[in-house]
Amino acid sequence: MPHTFDPGYFAEPFRTLCMNYPESDVYVPDQFRVEWGPIFHRGRLDGSARVLVIGQDPAQHETIVRRVLVGEAGKRLQGLLGKLGITASYVIINTFLYSVYGSVKAATAKDARLIGYRNSWLDALLIGQKVEAVIALGMAADAAWQAWKQTPSGKTFNVAYAPVTHPTEPESSSKNDKKKLAEATKKLLENWNSGLQALSPSVKNPDVATALVAYGDTWAAGDRPAIPEGDMPAGLPSWMHEQDGWAARLGIDATTKRRNITVTVPRGIVT
Amino acid sequence: MPHTFDPGYFAEPFRTLCMNYPESDVYVPDQFRVEWGPIFHRGRLDGSARVLVIGQDPAQHETIVRRVLVGEAGKRLQGLLGKLGITASYVIINTFLYSVYGSVKAATAKDARLIGYRNSWLDALLIGQKVEAVIALGMAADAAWQAWKQTPSGKTFNVAYAPVTHPTEPESSSKNDKKKLAEATKKLLENWNSGLQALSPSVKNPDVATALVAYGDTWAAGDRPAIPEGDMPAGLPSWMHEQDGWAARLGIDATTKRRNITVTVPRGIVT
Repeated sequence: MPHTFDPGYFAEPFRTLCMNYPESDVYVPDQFRVEWGPIFHRGRLDGSARVLVIGQDPAQHETIVRRVLVGEAGKRLQGLLGKLGITASYVIINTFLYSVYGSVKAATAKDARLIGYRNSWLDALLIGQKVEAVIALGMAADAAWQAWKQTPSGKTFNVAYAPVTHPTEPESSSKNDKKKLAEATKKLLENWNSGLQALSPSVKNPDVATALVAYGDTWAAGDRPAIPEGDMPAGLPSWMHEQDGWAARLGIDATTKRRNITVTVPRGIVT
Repeated sequence: MPHTFDPGYFAEPFRTLCMNYPESDVYVPDQFRVEWGPIFHRGRLDGSARVLVIGQDPAQHETIVRRVLVGEAGKRLQGLLGKLGITASYVIINTFLYSVYGSVKAATAKDARLIGYRNSWLDALLIGQKVEAVIALGMAADAAWQAWKQTPSGKTFNVAYAPVTHPTEPESSSKNDKKKLAEATKKLLENWNSGLQALSPSVKNPDVATALVAYGDTWAAGDRPAIPEGDMPAGLPSWMHEQDGWAARLGIDATTKRRNITVTVPRGIVT
């Protein structure tokens, strides 16, 4: 069976964007893991994207794969896109090019160089392209969208837009409390249902004609599909897009952890 | 400063080659770490290569970077190419797509599907292209070359060819014995000097006009330059091409080790 893959950043303007990105003078190392390099996108760069997604920042799985939103948050997003009939025609960038370390100071997030670079990506992905809907995952992504909307090109650009709760907000906010997790998940899915209602009429060219089916109170079977192989660079093993939890930052203290990513092939593959 | 990068496998025939590669029915899991996926090449795929190199198999650094010969062996090769005036116009493939586990059985290495796929790469990189010299690193690579030379296209193809000792053979053969290592290194460098003598007259279009300077009895300053940033995928941090020893297979037993790659940012980068 042929293995599809993402051909990456060979065409302009993406080739130039991936050669000239903000570094540690903009993404300061006390707030970002700049030492692992920037991670740019996932999905279609060939103009076929119908939905644009803005995520937050890359974590350890993204750092190994060099594509954004490939872990659990990515699977949940994949399910959300699927409910709009979008199985391939999407493109995803993050608010931040580098993994957030601790929290981001307002002054850093508002740095004109940081915003300007991200806006160049948004210009490239939106102006004169086919995007019919934009989704922002979480508050930082919503702020990123608003910053673009204040630019001359953003001001005059009309597209359906829904800021929704970040896919793993329930885990972040509930801190291992199962009851809180269930409540937060229910709240997230209600929020996502509203987002789907808002965007669904605007997605006129889905990959698969799909009647909108709302989420229930918790994740159902099929709500967290695997990341498509075609979103990965060439040659990556299937467990990297089918599974999650195979990369971790391990270490006895904060600095050791920060310097480490441990990749473990999931059980059942090496026999 | 712009960061150059390798745009990868977007053009044919490489795009199709990277979609259709031999898997565990050919590269059997008791001889190859197929679970980490195939790793295809390093260097120029745009027809500008003047020297073609055949290496052996990818190890842990190659698995993270997804390009071949990026560790210590790669640096030594980079030095060898530099002595021919070749700083950018090279392309490297390996004998084996996957990391060797233990040793490779003769029957596996002679599998027509394994050889046929590799020959498709050699056809693509040689027939009608500009390559002026071919280097094989180690005996398996020499056998790979001979197998291609037996094909109809190989038989009629004339190019300068030198099989040389594998760059890290001294470490493999000396098993931490310093005296043996020094002797094996001297022997390797003598062997490489012979290879340079054989190939140098044929490399008529080097990147940099260079008078041939032979190796001494041991590695000299400048003999192990860093892997060029332009050989790496987009966005990889500089330590991944400038340094070595940042990836290891760790674990308490063979299976655990096989399932693990631990990446550690070198000292002095996270402060």
